[in-house]
Amino acid sequence: MTAKILSILEVELTPQSKTMLLSTLKNLLFFLIFLISPIITTQDYHPLNPLTPSELIQVQTIVKNHFSSPYHSVSFHYVGLDEPEKSIILLWQSNLDHTPPRRAFVIARFDQKSHELIVDLLTNSIVLDRVYDGHGYPIQNFQEEKAASELAYSYAPFIASIMRRRLKLEEVLCMSFTVGWFGEETSRRIVRVMCYYLDGTVNFYMRPIEGITVTVDLDEMKIIGYRDRIMVPVPKSDGTEYRGSMQSAPPDSTLKGSASLEPSFKLEGHVLRWEDWVLHLSFDMRAGLIISLASIYDPEKNEYRRVLYRGFISELFVPYMDLTEEWYYRTFFDAGENGFGLCAVPLVPLKDCPENAVFMDGYFTSQDGTPGYIPNVFCIFERQAGNVMWRHTELGIPGQMVTEVRPETTLVVRMVSTVGNYDYIVDWEFKQTGTIKVTVGMTGLLEVRGSMYTHKDQIQEEVYGTILAENTIGAHHDHFLIFSLDLDVDGDANSFVKSNLETSRVNGDISPRKSYWRVSSETAKTESDARIQLGSGATELLVVNPNKKTKVGNHVGYRLFPGSAARPLLSDDEYAQIRGAFTKYNVWVTPYNKTEKWAGGLYADQSRGDDNLASWSLRNRDIENKDIVLWYTVGFHHVPCQEDFPVMPTLTESFELRPTNFFEHNPMLIERQHKEIISPAKYNVSSQ
Amino acid sequence: MTAKILSILEVELTPQSKTMLLSTLKNLLFFLIFLISPIITTQDYHPLNPLTPSELIQVQTIVKNHFSSPYHSVSFHYVGLDEPEKSIILLWQSNLDHTPPRRAFVIARFDQKSHELIVDLLTNSIVLDRVYDGHGYPIQNFQEEKAASELAYSYAPFIASIMRRRLKLEEVLCMSFTVGWFGEETSRRIVRVMCYYLDGTVNFYMRPIEGITVTVDLDEMKIIGYRDRIMVPVPKSDGTEYRGSMQSAPPDSTLKGSASLEPSFKLEGHVLRWEDWVLHLSFDMRAGLIISLASIYDPEKNEYRRVLYRGFISELFVPYMDLTEEWYYRTFFDAGENGFGLCAVPLVPLKDCPENAVFMDGYFTSQDGTPGYIPNVFCIFERQAGNVMWRHTELGIPGQMVTEVRPETTLVVRMVSTVGNYDYIVDWEFKQTGTIKVTVGMTGLLEVRGSMYTHKDQIQEEVYGTILAENTIGAHHDHFLIFSLDLDVDGDANSFVKSNLETSRVNGDISPRKSYWRVSSETAKTESDARIQLGSGATELLVVNPNKKTKVGNHVGYRLFPGSAARPLLSDDEYAQIRGAFTKYNVWVTPYNKTEKWAGGLYADQSRGDDNLASWSLRNRDIENKDIVLWYTVGFHHVPCQEDFPVMPTLTESFELRPTNFFEHNPMLIERQHKEIISPAKYNVSSQ
Repeated sequence: MTAKILSILEVELTPQSKTMLLSTLKNLLFFLIFLISPIITTQDYHPLNPLTPSELIQVQTIVKNHFSSPYHSVSFHYVGLDEPEKSIILLWQSNLDHTPPRRAFVIARFDQKSHELIVDLLTNSIVLDRVYDGHGYPIQNFQEEKAASELAYSYAPFIASIMRRRLKLEEVLCMSFTVGWFGEETSRRIVRVMCYYLDGTVNFYMRPIEGITVTVDLDEMKIIGYRDRIMVPVPKSDGTEYRGSMQSAPPDSTLKGSASLEPSFKLEGHVLRWEDWVLHLSFDMRAGLIISLASIYDPEKNEYRRVLYRGFISELFVPYMDLTEEWYYRTFFDAGENGFGLCAVPLVPLKDCPENAVFMDGYFTSQDGTPGYIPNVFCIFERQAGNVMWRHTELGIPGQMVTEVRPETTLVVRMVSTVGNYDYIVDWEFKQTGTIKVTVGMTGLLEVRGSMYTHKDQIQEEVYGTILAENTIGAHHDHFLIFSLDLDVDGDANSFVKSNLETSRVNGDISPRKSYWRVSSETAKTESDARIQLGSGATELLVVNPNKKTKVGNHVGYRLFPGSAARPLLSDDEYAQIRGAFTKYNVWVTPYNKTEKWAGGLYADQSRGDDNLASWSLRNRDIENKDIVLWYTVGFHHVPCQEDFPVMPTLTESFELRPTNFFEHNPMLIERQHKEIISPAKYNVSSQ
Repeated sequence: MTAKILSILEVELTPQSKTMLLSTLKNLLFFLIFLISPIITTQDYHPLNPLTPSELIQVQTIVKNHFSSPYHSVSFHYVGLDEPEKSIILLWQSNLDHTPPRRAFVIARFDQKSHELIVDLLTNSIVLDRVYDGHGYPIQNFQEEKAASELAYSYAPFIASIMRRRLKLEEVLCMSFTVGWFGEETSRRIVRVMCYYLDGTVNFYMRPIEGITVTVDLDEMKIIGYRDRIMVPVPKSDGTEYRGSMQSAPPDSTLKGSASLEPSFKLEGHVLRWEDWVLHLSFDMRAGLIISLASIYDPEKNEYRRVLYRGFISELFVPYMDLTEEWYYRTFFDAGENGFGLCAVPLVPLKDCPENAVFMDGYFTSQDGTPGYIPNVFCIFERQAGNVMWRHTELGIPGQMVTEVRPETTLVVRMVSTVGNYDYIVDWEFKQTGTIKVTVGMTGLLEVRGSMYTHKDQIQEEVYGTILAENTIGAHHDHFLIFSLDLDVDGDANSFVKSNLETSRVNGDISPRKSYWRVSSETAKTESDARIQLGSGATELLVVNPNKKTKVGNHVGYRLFPGSAARPLLSDDEYAQIRGAFTKYNVWVTPYNKTEKWAGGLYADQSRGDDNLASWSLRNRDIENKDIVLWYTVGFHHVPCQEDFPVMPTLTESFELRPTNFFEHNPMLIERQHKEIISPAKYNVSSQ
């Protein structure tokens, strides 16, 4: 991304009336979608469930009372579950009498200060109120972004700039952009407002009004800087349309169910059970989709075994490569500045997800503490993509032809977050063989720069991008998505093992061969041993449980099969790169620490790099036989091309976590016993 | 792979009676499969069509007459289409009156010599007979492999070895393995025979009889070497079963159609037409599936535009990393030694391919020239995997929520080749957006070594693999599959462009930024400029047409999005690596040359590396603005794990060819005109 706008998904939800929610929704475009999507009860208790609307209202009431003042109003920037410690969750899982606490973590601004609050929902009280005095600011909420954008419309110099360009003010659409940090000594909480021209298109991102910079102080909500530097043509609206309804022969393709229409998975509240997998799904306004407590049933051991305690997208770093005044600062952190969950969009049945999909809703908090609502924020579906789980044809046995083929069916949990112009499609896919595959699809609209050029031959200067259409430059940029993967392979205490495949020379006459490769495995002792720059080198990365072995003596483990190995091309001393230093290595491992959740820092907006994964890791803590967290970054460098205009074909990257000596054999060949499954208490009950 | 066995798919097909074919087939297991598969007429003429059964018989007759001798019989090792020159094909496409010649290329052995023959099918004559006197031998045919394997059963020392191990001779199953080359001065055409123990399993690959080496001279068909070196236990058959029918609760999963059951593609003979794509499919006993003449309709230009003249798997290099006497030589070339097409297997409807799949058959030549038959060798199906072609949700426009989503439907052409133990699933997938995605799935059975060890803790020496089960070591090995991709982007004359993304420091005060990246593009002049080792470096690789530009001035092109960047870990002076030197770089570009088809050399068996991609490329020819061929290698290093036992979950790698400034815009947003399509003559006619 980029910018964010007041979500029309936000609705007023008061404790008095849940029916008001529905009546407000009636006017919204997606109401019908909501009605036809399966209704899921979200009441089943689980200590990792996201806060419910009534809990969000409870938080609002408690925090507003706490900050009651005639002079200032409190502004909410983050409200989410204050997750209980892992030990407490695991204790509860084995014995449901140990009910964990139920608390909210809140970041609110009051009197120009960021407050961190912990609200206890059982005792109805605030148990912590700490003022944050470090660098950086919390997620910007939709309301302040909208208010900042709207300042421009009545600002005389801005109106004059629009007139000078002979544009119609009523067709101008402004948005606010986070500004990063470029070495300033002191900081104010500011945004830049950039404007676009509608006038005949909905694809306003293709029609930037270049040359104008409006700087707004968010706390004072006033314009504190203005410059109109250059005039270039607004690109034409021709060829920017992407709506099927505006085409003479609109496409009517829809997604058919690709597996059984009767879902073979079960949702009990937020607990999802499919084939041998059981896991918990949650929505968070910063992270979006969070997968927790994923365990897989081992038919040979006849018990559930732990795999992934928690997995989510911790941060997205999207730096642009344009040095001009209106562009240089665009070095966005889409989760920490804008809220990757906050920007999630309702999934469209039969389009975003096939007909066998089941949907879940998500709730977030608006500026004044009121809950907002995103229907269909996740979809869950069984997928048969026509792939083969395993196969073999045996022609070697006289008189027999043996052919055994197992088609692959997988389960997908999907979320789409549209951070301004870019749409990120995030799939967590679970396979029967124990593999977890994560895929990120990138589509949506490019961030383009208006330009005087209509043909490449005219361009003599550096334009920092590709000419896509007349007057339209697609700016070079990167996307780095960092995943936090708290693997708990058969328990908390895990180690990170690098298995290097090393060329070995053959000495003497032991073989006609001169060389071969062998595996040299190395267990990372401290964090510095586990910082990995992926390349062409042959290294296998595993998280193993050093306390558990298979029958023939291999350590049980899960292996990371990375996809992209892209790394930043910014210099290490570049301010944006200091802030996004988690991209310096593709892989990091840290000891589990409840507070180390956001790889770009808790306060990512205008952060200075003093609180992020790279800075935490400097402590170089022990990570051997500990509860560890694996961090992996999926990266893309994007040189736009004309096919990306006016809307981008999806580009995907994926990675896998594959069981590696975790099972005794291929688990899909182990015969199922009488399914008296030994599992944590929670997974034995159908509902509480 | 490994070894190959007499295919039960081979049937006697005489010119007299096509009905004999069916009657022979009646006893075969897959007969039913054949009956229910859609019958496709393969009579539509196209000069790239594979040789028909009657043409194969014509070749057999002509060649047998040519070599008529009372002392020697001729042995067929390769029969395939002698492809007309590209210029002749293109001329024919534009004017069907220019009928290209119809010739077969044959490699046959006669009197211990390899003959290359060109047989003209129109004049019924041999127009070339050249004796090959270089290093290496042609593809081994099933019959000689079977004969070699069977020599062991009656060889007294071998029988004694089996007795000494207290094994039942009737449960021993032998197979022949190609031997590579390890610096010997002179060579004979030999194989090694390795044996396995059935006795209660069909998964004999998990039950090697270790320690015995039988060397067979193929031309003399006699044992010329024998050694019984060590005795280790044959691994147990427990846990090796993979047949559903042998399990108490057999799986009944089948693949449902994931898109329309009425195929929306058209097959006219071997020409496949789907959405905007048109292409030709062919089967070759060495390469397997060959894609030719793939062109895409451009709705804006209202014409078909050329993309890929030809694409196929040119070679597979599979070196094992075990130095022991029975293993060191296993450095297989699965296409050149065994025939990747010859090893193709009939695809199982509803298992290998979904219910909306259409099947095609393939023909090959047996040792004596008789055509063999592989039913269902390809399947073609539309896939809706639940993915999104492109989407965007726009919340930025007051009072509107715009959501446009286009689900993705693709077309897949699939082949499976089972080269002994390994099953390779090869998918060529065509997307509406112009992308060609190629995916290789690897499954099947590991090549394991018998061992005395039953637990890892007992192992003190180097065992060159992972202990997978009692007495079973999964040997370390690699797979390198090299694709030959003759891109003709909008015509023959293309260039290869490396676009390096380079960090650039910001000088002076022009921006608060200290760095950014820029694109530095470099057109490869000669072959050495185009040898690429992929790594973490940021380089985009494009094939462009330097003579064609888009309206805004970009060169039209297709970009290679590589998947795997794996490279060999063998030393450069390793004999196997000299033979498989095409793996040294992930990417190569050569000028189009009709004879440069097989990256491991035409005579790969016991080759010495003097005729392969690396040696051709030494000439360092001009490749700028020429008809060029792109070579890309998909590589895997395989450290087996217990989940791979007794059958491996599929592991996939893929790469894409994506249009990049080829279209003026995203092609799926261009409105279709009245579809009076300007296309080559061939594609305007429905059948000839």
